[in-house]
Amino acid sequence: MRDEATFVDESLLKKVPRWRGYLEAKLGFRNHWYAVRLSGDVGEGQIEKVTLAGENILLKRINSKVYAIRDRCIHRGIPFSQKPECYTPDTITCWYHGFTYRWFDGVLSDILAAPDSRVIGNRKVQTYPVEEAKGVLFVYLGDEGVTPQPLREDVPPYFLDDDMAVEGHAYLVQSNWRLAAENGFDALHVYIHRTSPLLGNTQRGLPIGHIASSAHITVYEEAGEPKGVYDDFEQHSVVYDATVDGNVVVKGTRSSRPPGPESRSSGASTWLPCSARVDNFPDAGHYQFEWYTPVTEDSHYYLILIGKRVNSEAEALAHRQEFWNRWKPLSLEGFNNQDIEARVGLQTFYKDDRAWLTEGLIEADLPIMKWRELCHEHNRGIQTPDHIR
Amino acid sequence: MRDEATFVDESLLKKVPRWRGYLEAKLGFRNHWYAVRLSGDVGEGQIEKVTLAGENILLKRINSKVYAIRDRCIHRGIPFSQKPECYTPDTITCWYHGFTYRWFDGVLSDILAAPDSRVIGNRKVQTYPVEEAKGVLFVYLGDEGVTPQPLREDVPPYFLDDDMAVEGHAYLVQSNWRLAAENGFDALHVYIHRTSPLLGNTQRGLPIGHIASSAHITVYEEAGEPKGVYDDFEQHSVVYDATVDGNVVVKGTRSSRPPGPESRSSGASTWLPCSARVDNFPDAGHYQFEWYTPVTEDSHYYLILIGKRVNSEAEALAHRQEFWNRWKPLSLEGFNNQDIEARVGLQTFYKDDRAWLTEGLIEADLPIMKWRELCHEHNRGIQTPDHIR
Amino acid sequence: MRDEATFVDESLLKKVPRWRGYLEAKLGFRNHWYAVRLSGDVGEGQIEKVTLAGENILLKRINSKVYAIRDRCIHRGIPFSQKPECYTPDTITCWYHGFTYRWFDGVLSDILAAPDSRVIGNRKVQTYPVEEAKGVLFVYLGDEGVTPQPLREDVPPYFLDDDMAVEGHAYLVQSNWRLAAENGFDALHVYIHRTSPLLGNTQRGLPIGHIASSAHITVYEEAGEPKGVYDDFEQHSVVYDATVDGNVVVKGTRSSRPPGPESRSSGASTWLPCSARVDNFPDAGHYQFEWYTPVTEDSHYYLILIGKRVNSEAEALAHRQEFWNRWKPLSLEGFNNQDIEARVGLQTFYKDDRAWLTEGLIEADLPIMKWRELCHEHNRGIQTPDHIR
Repeated sequence: MRDEATFVDESLLKKVPRWRGYLEAKLGFRNHWYAVRLSGDVGEGQIEKVTLAGENILLKRINSKVYAIRDRCIHRGIPFSQKPECYTPDTITCWYHGFTYRWFDGVLSDILAAPDSRVIGNRKVQTYPVEEAKGVLFVYLGDEGVTPQPLREDVPPYFLDDDMAVEGHAYLVQSNWRLAAENGFDALHVYIHRTSPLLGNTQRGLPIGHIASSAHITVYEEAGEPKGVYDDFEQHSVVYDATVDGNVVVKGTRSSRPPGPESRSSGASTWLPCSARVDNFPDAGHYQFEWYTPVTEDSHYYLILIGKRVNSEAEALAHRQEFWNRWKPLSLEGFNNQDIEARVGLQTFYKDDRAWLTEGLIEADLPIMKWRELCHEHNRGIQTPDHIR
Repeated sequence: MRDEATFVDESLLKKVPRWRGYLEAKLGFRNHWYAVRLSGDVGEGQIEKVTLAGENILLKRINSKVYAIRDRCIHRGIPFSQKPECYTPDTITCWYHGFTYRWFDGVLSDILAAPDSRVIGNRKVQTYPVEEAKGVLFVYLGDEGVTPQPLREDVPPYFLDDDMAVEGHAYLVQSNWRLAAENGFDALHVYIHRTSPLLGNTQRGLPIGHIASSAHITVYEEAGEPKGVYDDFEQHSVVYDATVDGNVVVKGTRSSRPPGPESRSSGASTWLPCSARVDNFPDAGHYQFEWYTPVTEDSHYYLILIGKRVNSEAEALAHRQEFWNRWKPLSLEGFNNQDIEARVGLQTFYKDDRAWLTEGLIEADLPIMKWRELCHEHNRGIQTPDHIR
Repeated sequence: MRDEATFVDESLLKKVPRWRGYLEAKLGFRNHWYAVRLSGDVGEGQIEKVTLAGENILLKRINSKVYAIRDRCIHRGIPFSQKPECYTPDTITCWYHGFTYRWFDGVLSDILAAPDSRVIGNRKVQTYPVEEAKGVLFVYLGDEGVTPQPLREDVPPYFLDDDMAVEGHAYLVQSNWRLAAENGFDALHVYIHRTSPLLGNTQRGLPIGHIASSAHITVYEEAGEPKGVYDDFEQHSVVYDATVDGNVVVKGTRSSRPPGPESRSSGASTWLPCSARVDNFPDAGHYQFEWYTPVTEDSHYYLILIGKRVNSEAEALAHRQEFWNRWKPLSLEGFNNQDIEARVGLQTFYKDDRAWLTEGLIEADLPIMKWRELCHEHNRGIQTPDHIR
């Protein structure tokens, strides 16, 4: 029996007062919007099972709109998904005793085996607000009575812009979500990408390392706006020749294209609750949007979307084709797969909460520390095992 | 290392003063008789390994009678069953150092490798009383020094009657034993059986739900008699037409046979420590006896026996044939298999002890609550991890 | 999250004041030398991954000498072994950010992605002293600042003698290391070996049991010398005819060779931190050396070496041939495999720390108790989960 008291030990939390809320957020934050599926994953009338921050949730699309309820009957805890029964388009019935709920508001509208019960109409299964934007389904993991903030506060800037076309794909990765966020926002980690086929394909450069100082970092924390940390790669000091004992042992890739965004990605940013944007990546004029949505303590839903501003349907279609023909095989599966490998390696260490206090961060990890502090400061609540029970 | 203090948390127990002993009895009760095997499972001279409420036990039939000992040498804890050695019919020898015990009383009668040890004759391996009745082997899980109550106090009334012929089969089910007991005694759960092939075969009826009130429930708690709760189905209010939003979406099966027991089961009862009887089921004039014997916290031995009163060997043989040809495929595997599915679903929720406090029972769950209170009141002890070590 | 406080419960430890340090040493002792691999397992330039007492370690042979470092980058805990990178013979580079360490002293000599970091030259990954003797690689599991004792203090006497030729093979066994040590040093356990093909092959004898008394046991605890317990088999009272109820049911094997060492093994001894020597075994004039090196709480590295004194290269070669042709199939895999079976059986009981207090040792287990007390008295520190994190 897992006890809340042992979720993250208080003795550890008090050692990191500036990012205690982040160390505690093994399962993510509450009262935020999370990307949980691509729109195409839930067709009309279809039921999809999702785990978000440890909570089992069912999605169903009814008359084009997607609704979300907890996958657990309030009567005796049976998962609806074990044998889903839907006698009307907008209700779901528990297969054990016929408890029937409305997808719209979760109200217990009928009990097939006990039609005269006084609880009918007076109890509810938990529902979750859902929004759909840019082909992505977002679920709000909120406390009771909390009015969801607008979705735009919980996604990276530019993502919702009218002219932004996005295409993407998702992976289930076996690491805690925070390791994914830190891996993506870590400027030094380009070292692992030196062998990616993306470099040859785009003829762009990639250093062995590029190093942020506090002057390059901008923290966004204006009220009512997305909260994030931006790291400007163009100002970084850059390493192309990596040495051991004074001898060059590995060389980065220098671009044959003009300097600036044509030559390499110009910056990366990370945003509450768990997303990122990489500018001019995988090529100049593109944006890579990512989500690291917590599934369990040990896994996250890794959604990668490539965005591009378009002025016409034809341009949007061309972007879509390029995603599937070029970016998915070359970048998602030829570049970001290297990140997945790193996260799995990190997980072996950080799965023990104490690791967060024995790690050995260096100067160049400053953006990561800024991200931790931002999360501590601006999250709207911590998900704990009590929310899952 | 599992600690007794965390077996079931005291903070939970104190919230249910009327059935605290039941919430605590994750592994069942002590000082009761349990059905553990069918007689035919243990032939003459044969050794059978059993787990009862977490305790590993060996059965052996010697000169027709079955004996039971703990499957663990007192010397260094070796399981005899890893490599059973029996040099005489009525002893078992540990394969590691030759510690030899009598099946009859557990006394250490010889040590093959150390024949002069002073402990010989002075130590014992734990033994368990065994009784055999109606083709079922019962083991008494008792505290030291406790004289077993007569078996008849721990089985449903009628089961031991001279004219009662029973035939049965058993299944290992992956749920806690209490979920099985509650599933069987839950009048509402007939909803899941609406698709059973048994209905067409017997031409009997089955409502979508039938609802008990306290007037229909009898609690049996006389000293020296079996302790149980009886629910009289014939007085229930019955639902045949199940509606959602006012429209009939599922119909129960109305019998084409005369009203009363001919038409449907007349009542169900549940008995300490973990058995049940369903009257006039699977057909009029039959009794279904069930045991939900705790194996581990997460599994139980589900024994189903169909009983019928007989006046001759020929009638007993006919009943036996009907069991194997008709009831086993149609009722055990075409009706009770649906119960097994429900228990596995319940287990996903109730495996966390806290679930017992967040469940949402309704009026019609009254018989279940009566059963919990009966168990609390009349059990003879709680099995805990300390008994297993 | 495993907590040090629950590693071995204080309430158990205080019940065994004379061997508390042994009960605590689930993962072995610190500041001792451990046999971890055979020399041939690590060829020139080759990297080998080892787990010692829960610590993940990499070995590499550089210019004939073997070095050992912790398999965990100090930066973010990544295991080097996930994708080992070595740009120079005497460095290892973490594949994630290019942190580069010297095998010799563990110093962080370069960071490929951040060559200007102030931490370069100022931090170290943990290194471990390594010694190689008699074809075995020994690693010192030491506290920081502790100067390793000479290897000779941590191996059985005779093992390092110049004329001692040894050949061996190793197995990973799924039991705690202490169960292996006790199994090996347990004079009664010969009972399990009565069916070994070794007996027929050597024409030597093996009783069913032989029983030590304190007069036969010598404890070695002189400062600066190996610490061990020796049990002199030749003085034991010996059992050849094992009885149940007064009838002989099993007979030991009496030797057809002259009495004394020609006829059977003359004694066994166990040594800190986790080795043993059996004299005149598997045949007269041979020594069996064994190591039970802790890997995890539930597994150990079981190294078996057969030693023989030789006067020439030809004799050494003959011994080598006899090992592979005769002792490995007949003794290691026809005798010691029976010990492995016993350890796996013991593990089912002793994996719960409480078992050490509910076991039922007898008079003949005296050598085991002497061994536990020796370990308590003379170990140089206890390995705990804190050392692994």
